[in-house]
Amino acid sequence: MAGSTYGTIFKITTWGESHGKGIGVVIDGCPAGLSLCEDDIQAYLDRRKPGQSRYTTQRKESDAVEILSGVFNGRTTGTPISLVVFNQDQRSRDYGDIASYYRPGHADYTFDAKYGFRDYRGGGRSSGRETIGRTAAGAIAAKILKQLGVTLTTYTKSIGPVTAASFDVGEICQNPLYMPDAVAAAQAQAYLEACMKHKDSSGGIIECIIDGLPAGIGDPVFEKLDANLAKAILSIGAVKGFEIGDGFGAAQANGSANNDGFTVTEGSAVAKSSNHSGGTLGGMSDGSPVIFRAAIKPTPSIAAVQNTVSKSGEEIEISIHGRHDPVIVPRAVVVVEAMAALTLLDAMLLNMTARLDSICQFYRR
Amino acid sequence: MAGSTYGTIFKITTWGESHGKGIGVVIDGCPAGLSLCEDDIQAYLDRRKPGQSRYTTQRKESDAVEILSGVFNGRTTGTPISLVVFNQDQRSRDYGDIASYYRPGHADYTFDAKYGFRDYRGGGRSSGRETIGRTAAGAIAAKILKQLGVTLTTYTKSIGPVTAASFDVGEICQNPLYMPDAVAAAQAQAYLEACMKHKDSSGGIIECIIDGLPAGIGDPVFEKLDANLAKAILSIGAVKGFEIGDGFGAAQANGSANNDGFTVTEGSAVAKSSNHSGGTLGGMSDGSPVIFRAAIKPTPSIAAVQNTVSKSGEEIEISIHGRHDPVIVPRAVVVVEAMAALTLLDAMLLNMTARLDSICQFYRR
Amino acid sequence: MAGSTYGTIFKITTWGESHGKGIGVVIDGCPAGLSLCEDDIQAYLDRRKPGQSRYTTQRKESDAVEILSGVFNGRTTGTPISLVVFNQDQRSRDYGDIASYYRPGHADYTFDAKYGFRDYRGGGRSSGRETIGRTAAGAIAAKILKQLGVTLTTYTKSIGPVTAASFDVGEICQNPLYMPDAVAAAQAQAYLEACMKHKDSSGGIIECIIDGLPAGIGDPVFEKLDANLAKAILSIGAVKGFEIGDGFGAAQANGSANNDGFTVTEGSAVAKSSNHSGGTLGGMSDGSPVIFRAAIKPTPSIAAVQNTVSKSGEEIEISIHGRHDPVIVPRAVVVVEAMAALTLLDAMLLNMTARLDSICQFYRR
Amino acid sequence: MAGSTYGTIFKITTWGESHGKGIGVVIDGCPAGLSLCEDDIQAYLDRRKPGQSRYTTQRKESDAVEILSGVFNGRTTGTPISLVVFNQDQRSRDYGDIASYYRPGHADYTFDAKYGFRDYRGGGRSSGRETIGRTAAGAIAAKILKQLGVTLTTYTKSIGPVTAASFDVGEICQNPLYMPDAVAAAQAQAYLEACMKHKDSSGGIIECIIDGLPAGIGDPVFEKLDANLAKAILSIGAVKGFEIGDGFGAAQANGSANNDGFTVTEGSAVAKSSNHSGGTLGGMSDGSPVIFRAAIKPTPSIAAVQNTVSKSGEEIEISIHGRHDPVIVPRAVVVVEAMAALTLLDAMLLNMTARLDSICQFYRR
Repeated sequence: MAGSTYGTIFKITTWGESHGKGIGVVIDGCPAGLSLCEDDIQAYLDRRKPGQSRYTTQRKESDAVEILSGVFNGRTTGTPISLVVFNQDQRSRDYGDIASYYRPGHADYTFDAKYGFRDYRGGGRSSGRETIGRTAAGAIAAKILKQLGVTLTTYTKSIGPVTAASFDVGEICQNPLYMPDAVAAAQAQAYLEACMKHKDSSGGIIECIIDGLPAGIGDPVFEKLDANLAKAILSIGAVKGFEIGDGFGAAQANGSANNDGFTVTEGSAVAKSSNHSGGTLGGMSDGSPVIFRAAIKPTPSIAAVQNTVSKSGEEIEISIHGRHDPVIVPRAVVVVEAMAALTLLDAMLLNMTARLDSICQFYRR
Repeated sequence: MAGSTYGTIFKITTWGESHGKGIGVVIDGCPAGLSLCEDDIQAYLDRRKPGQSRYTTQRKESDAVEILSGVFNGRTTGTPISLVVFNQDQRSRDYGDIASYYRPGHADYTFDAKYGFRDYRGGGRSSGRETIGRTAAGAIAAKILKQLGVTLTTYTKSIGPVTAASFDVGEICQNPLYMPDAVAAAQAQAYLEACMKHKDSSGGIIECIIDGLPAGIGDPVFEKLDANLAKAILSIGAVKGFEIGDGFGAAQANGSANNDGFTVTEGSAVAKSSNHSGGTLGGMSDGSPVIFRAAIKPTPSIAAVQNTVSKSGEEIEISIHGRHDPVIVPRAVVVVEAMAALTLLDAMLLNMTARLDSICQFYRR
Repeated sequence: MAGSTYGTIFKITTWGESHGKGIGVVIDGCPAGLSLCEDDIQAYLDRRKPGQSRYTTQRKESDAVEILSGVFNGRTTGTPISLVVFNQDQRSRDYGDIASYYRPGHADYTFDAKYGFRDYRGGGRSSGRETIGRTAAGAIAAKILKQLGVTLTTYTKSIGPVTAASFDVGEICQNPLYMPDAVAAAQAQAYLEACMKHKDSSGGIIECIIDGLPAGIGDPVFEKLDANLAKAILSIGAVKGFEIGDGFGAAQANGSANNDGFTVTEGSAVAKSSNHSGGTLGGMSDGSPVIFRAAIKPTPSIAAVQNTVSKSGEEIEISIHGRHDPVIVPRAVVVVEAMAALTLLDAMLLNMTARLDSICQFYRR
Repeated sequence: MAGSTYGTIFKITTWGESHGKGIGVVIDGCPAGLSLCEDDIQAYLDRRKPGQSRYTTQRKESDAVEILSGVFNGRTTGTPISLVVFNQDQRSRDYGDIASYYRPGHADYTFDAKYGFRDYRGGGRSSGRETIGRTAAGAIAAKILKQLGVTLTTYTKSIGPVTAASFDVGEICQNPLYMPDAVAAAQAQAYLEACMKHKDSSGGIIECIIDGLPAGIGDPVFEKLDANLAKAILSIGAVKGFEIGDGFGAAQANGSANNDGFTVTEGSAVAKSSNHSGGTLGGMSDGSPVIFRAAIKPTPSIAAVQNTVSKSGEEIEISIHGRHDPVIVPRAVVVVEAMAALTLLDAMLLNMTARLDSICQFYRR
C-alpha cells in the first residue's frame, strides 16, 4: 500500500530513488503566509550532505533543492509545496554485482520478497538518499515551530561505546560528529579510525531535546505524542530503538524515583520538579522539555568479507567496496530532527480543535 | 482530534472511561467468515483481569465481554463488530481528593491542560481499563493471524533489576509474572515484596516473539513494520521505550557483528544465519522471527508520600491509597500482544496489493 | 475494508444491524466543553422514528438513545462519545423467505457477492436502521454548528411528480411529509394514497439550506466542500443523485446567466448578487447560503409482484409484505441534515489551520 | 488542511499552479510489475490538451509528461511514481487586472477568504491545469483496470440544450465534442457558435459507462462505491451535480418501475433484467455496467461585461479577454474518466480483504 505519506494536517509525500532522476517531496497542508525560500530548506539538507568529514561518504553530491510550487511572492500560499533535488550523477554504471545478490543488513532481499524485483541501483528506494525528502519537509516544519516558540536541539549522544558525558550546546557544530562534548567527540573519532582500519563500521545514539512545547499537545490513546514520535523515528532507515525520558532505565526504576512531582513556579504556573517522563504524561506534552533517544545500527555496507546468497540461490562471499560512511549517526542527526519537527507540528495543528471555547473564539462567536 | 481509532484495513475504535457505564471497541474491516464467539475474546481479557495474584490490584472486576454486532450464526459478517464490557461498579464514591490535585506520573495535569477539565473518576479515559477495548480487538486479530500461520509469544523479560536468563515457553503461564524462567520469577517476586513493603512500585520489560510471518510484510519509508510496531507499543499507557532485535545494543555494535548473513536452507529457501535485526530489513519482515521489547515504567500510584500541586495552585503532600498494582508489567503482557497482533494483521492485509500479478490472480484475469 | 467511519477530525464510527442487539455510534474528536444530554440527540432521532404518519412504516420502535461515555457532569470531555439504541424487538421470526432470495432494489445480492453470506434479518446492516447512528452523531454536530452560527434547514422538495412551489419555513413541520408548501403537501399525500392503492411506492427530492457559513470553508482540489457533501449524501442508502446550486440546470445554462456577480454590502462586505453556485466557488464556501438537493429512489419493498432469483438459482415471483414505508423521503430528511452537519463541522475544524497568522494567534505567539 | 491527496491504497497527491514551474502528481501504492512508459500517460493527457478544436482554448501547451521515479526497466517497482509536466510558458505577464478584482464564477474570492492572499497568475491552483496531475494518475489506474477486465467509456451527453439521442461508440472520437451522436454533435457545434458570437459560454453533461466490474466492489455505509464516485466527480472544478443510474429521474419514479428484477443467465449466473440502479445496490457494484453523469457548469470566463468588486472594495464592471474555452465539457471528459478510474481501482484493491477464505488462500494457508 501507499507508505510514502506522513502526517494528518501537515502531510508530506516523498518519492525518488538513489540513482533515479531525482528525489522529492510534496508538502500538503502547509499553512499559508509563511515566508519561505530555498535557503531555508538548503540549510537543513546541508547538514546531511555527504563529504563533510572523513567519517561520512566521500561521494560528491551538491543536493541543491528547488521549489516547484506552493510559494508565491516569497510566501507559502496554502497549496502543495513541491520540492525536488535532481540527482546529478545518474551515469550508467555496472550494478551487476549488487543486482545479483542480497547484501546483509540491507533491504535487497525484503524488496524482492515483497515486490518480485527491485531497482538495485545504489539501493533504490531504500537508499539513505530517501531521507532527503523528509529532511527538506522537516526544515519547513521546524521554521513554523520556531515561530510558535518551539525549538529542537539534536545531537549525537554516543558513537559505539563512547558516550557524551557533558553537554555544551555550542560544541555540537564544532566537531564532525555533532557531539555536545569535545572530549567524547575526540574519543569517538579515534574509535571510528580503528573501525575503519578493520574495514568495519559503528552504530550510535542520537538524542533530541524539544523546548517550548506547551502542555496538552498530543492525544490520549492511539495518537499519543510519544507513540507518534516513536513511529516517526523508527521510520528512519537504520533506527532500531526509541526511548523517551528515562526510557529503558525506567523499567529498572521504582515509582518513588521515577515519578515527577509537581510544583508551582514563581510565575504561579504548574511545573514538574524533575523530568523522568521526558516531557509527556498520558500521551500529551506536560510542559517540560521533550527528550528522546534513537538507537542507530552500524552501517551495513562494510569492506570486510561477509557470507550471503546470490539470487540464483548459491551461498557466496562478498565484500562491499565503494564510498560508504563508517558511521551514519552524524548524518542522521538532522533526519531525526526533521521527523520530530514534522510530528510536533502536526500534533500542534491537530490540538487546535480540542476545546469548544477555542473553536468558538476562532470563529468569533 | 480523533485519537481513539487504530488501523487502516482492520480498524478499531475504542471508547469508555474507568468509572463510566462501560468500555468498548468497534472493529471495522474484520474479514467475513471468521468463526467468533465471546469466549475467543474473553480468553484474552482474562489475561489482563485484576485480582489474579498479590502483584496485581485486588479489585474485583469480572470484565465479561459481550458481542453486540457483526457476528451472525457464529461467523463474522464483514460489518462492524461492536464489543462492550459494562462496568459493574459505578457506585458514587468520593473523588474529592483525586479531583482536587494532580497525581505525579498520571495524566491528570495534561488532561486539564488540553481539555480544560477531566473525568477524574478512577483516571477516566487514561485509566488502565482503557486497554480492555484494544485487548478485545487484539484477540480477534490474533485468531485470524493464527489461521494465517502467524503466532505471538509474549512474556515478562524483566521486573526491575531481575531479568529472565533462560527461556522456557511452558513456564510463562506457570508463574504470576508471566516470566519464561522460574528462577528469575521467584527472584522477581521477592523483589516485588520488598517494593510493596516500602510502599513502592516497579517497572519492567516485556518481550514479544512473532513466528511464521512471511517475508515482505510492512512497507518501505513511513509505514515500516517496525515503525508501526513502535507506535502501537508506545500507545500503551506506561511504555517508555521500544526496541527491535538488538535494539539499543546495536548502537554499540560494529557492522561485522550486527549484520545477519544470508544462507540457503535445506529446502532451498533464503534464510538469515542470525537475527540481530529482529526480523525486519528496510521496514519489511525478512522471514526470521520478529522480536521486540517494551520498557514499562513503574506504577505511578504509590502509597509513599509525594509532592504535588492542587488545582487551586498550592503545593501539597499526598499519598495514594487504594488497590493499586505494585507492578503492571504482568497485566500489560497481553496488551502488548494485542497491539502487535493488530499491527501485524493490518500489515498483512495491506500487503495483498503489492504486486499486479497477485491482483490479477485474485480477480482471475 | 473498513467503511463505517466518517470524518477526519470529528470522526464517527457506526455499527449495528436491523435485528441485532442494537445500533450505535462512537464519536471521536468531539471538542471538549459542549453541554450535552440524551435529549439533544433524541430530538433528532425522533424525526426519523417510524409510525408518525400513515406514510411511514407502522412498526413501533421507541429508539431511545443512551450515552455510554464521553460526557461528564453534563459536558463533553473530548474523549469518545459512545451512543447506543438497543433494539427492542429481536424476537426470533421466520426469515426463511428473505434468506432464500434476492429482493429487487435491495442489497441482498451484493452483500452475498462481496462477503459470501449475509445477516438477512430485516436487511441486516443495509437496513434503514443503520442511519440511526449517523443521525445521532449529526445531532451533536448540528448543536456545535449552531454555536458557531451555522444553521441547517432541510425539507422535502418533491414527492414523485409533486414539487413544492412555495417556501414557508414554518410549514415544514406542519405536514407529515416535511414540505414547505401546504398545497403541494396535500397534493403529494393524495399522490401517495394512489401509490399505496396500487401496492407501489414513490421517490422524491430533499433540499437542504445552510445559513451562516463563513467564506473559505472547504479545500481546493480533492477535499472540496461540495465534493464532501456529495459523498456524505450519496452514502445514504437510497440516494441516487446530488446537485448543488443550479446543479443539472447549470449544464443547460450560459455563463452570463450562471455566473454570480460580486457586490458590496452596506456593511462594506463582499457578497454575491445571486446564488446560482449554491454557496461554493472552487470547493470553498463563498459566504452565500449553501443549497443542495438529493434524489431519493422509491422504496424498493413493494407489495406488487416482482420477478427475482432464489439463492438456489431459480427464477421466481415474489411480493413483499409487511410494514414498509410507501415513501422514505420524509424520514430521510433528518438523515440528510445529519450528514450535512457532520461534513460542515469537520470542514470548519480543518479550516482552522489554513493560515499561519491564525495558528500563531491561537498559541499566542 | 491537506486536500491534494486522493485514495486509500492507490493514493495520489497532486501539486502545481497554472503559471508556476510545473504541474505534477505522485502516485503512491501502485502495484509492482505494471509495464509503464510516458506514452501510456501522454495518451490521456492529449485528450485534455488545449487547441484541438475551435471550441477549446487556442493556447499552445504541449503538456509533455515525464516519469521521475517508480519505474525501473519499464515496469513499476511498487514505490512512488512521480510525474511532472513542466510549464513552458512562465514568462512574466501583467496580471494587474486579475490580481485586483474577483472574477465571477471563479475561486478568486474564496481563495483570498481562506488563505489571505492567492497566486493569481492564470488562476493559480484553481486553474483547469490542476487536472493534469489527476488525469496522468488516472491513465495509470485505467491501464491496470483494463488488465482486470474493467473498461471505461466516457463522452459528452449534452451541450447546453442539445442532448445526444443515439449512442454510437465509434462516433465519440469523430467529433471535437466527444459526443456519441453525429447529428447531436453538429447541432451542439452550431449552438456553441451562437454562444461564442454572443461572447458567452455553455455547460453540458458528461456520461461514463464502466463495463466489466465484478459484483461486490465498494462497501456498505460510508464508503459506498457511488458515494466515492460522487466525491471524485464533484472534486473536478466545474462539476455541479452527479447522478447514478436513473438519478434524479428515480425521484419521480415508482418502485415497481425503478426496481431491477433479477434473472438467471444462460451461464447460470445471477443478473439484472434492467439497470435503473446504474450498477450499484447498497453501495456495492451489482454486476451490471456502472453508469453515472456529471453536470458541468458553463465556463465562467466570458468576454461579456460582468459586475464585480475590486479588492479595494469598489463595485466595477469587467470583461474577461484572452483564450478561453467556450465550453469545457469536451476537455473534462477525460478528467471524469480519470477520476472514475482512480476510484474504481482503489475500491477493487480494498475489496481484496473482504473475506477470510480469500486472505487465507492468498497466503496459501
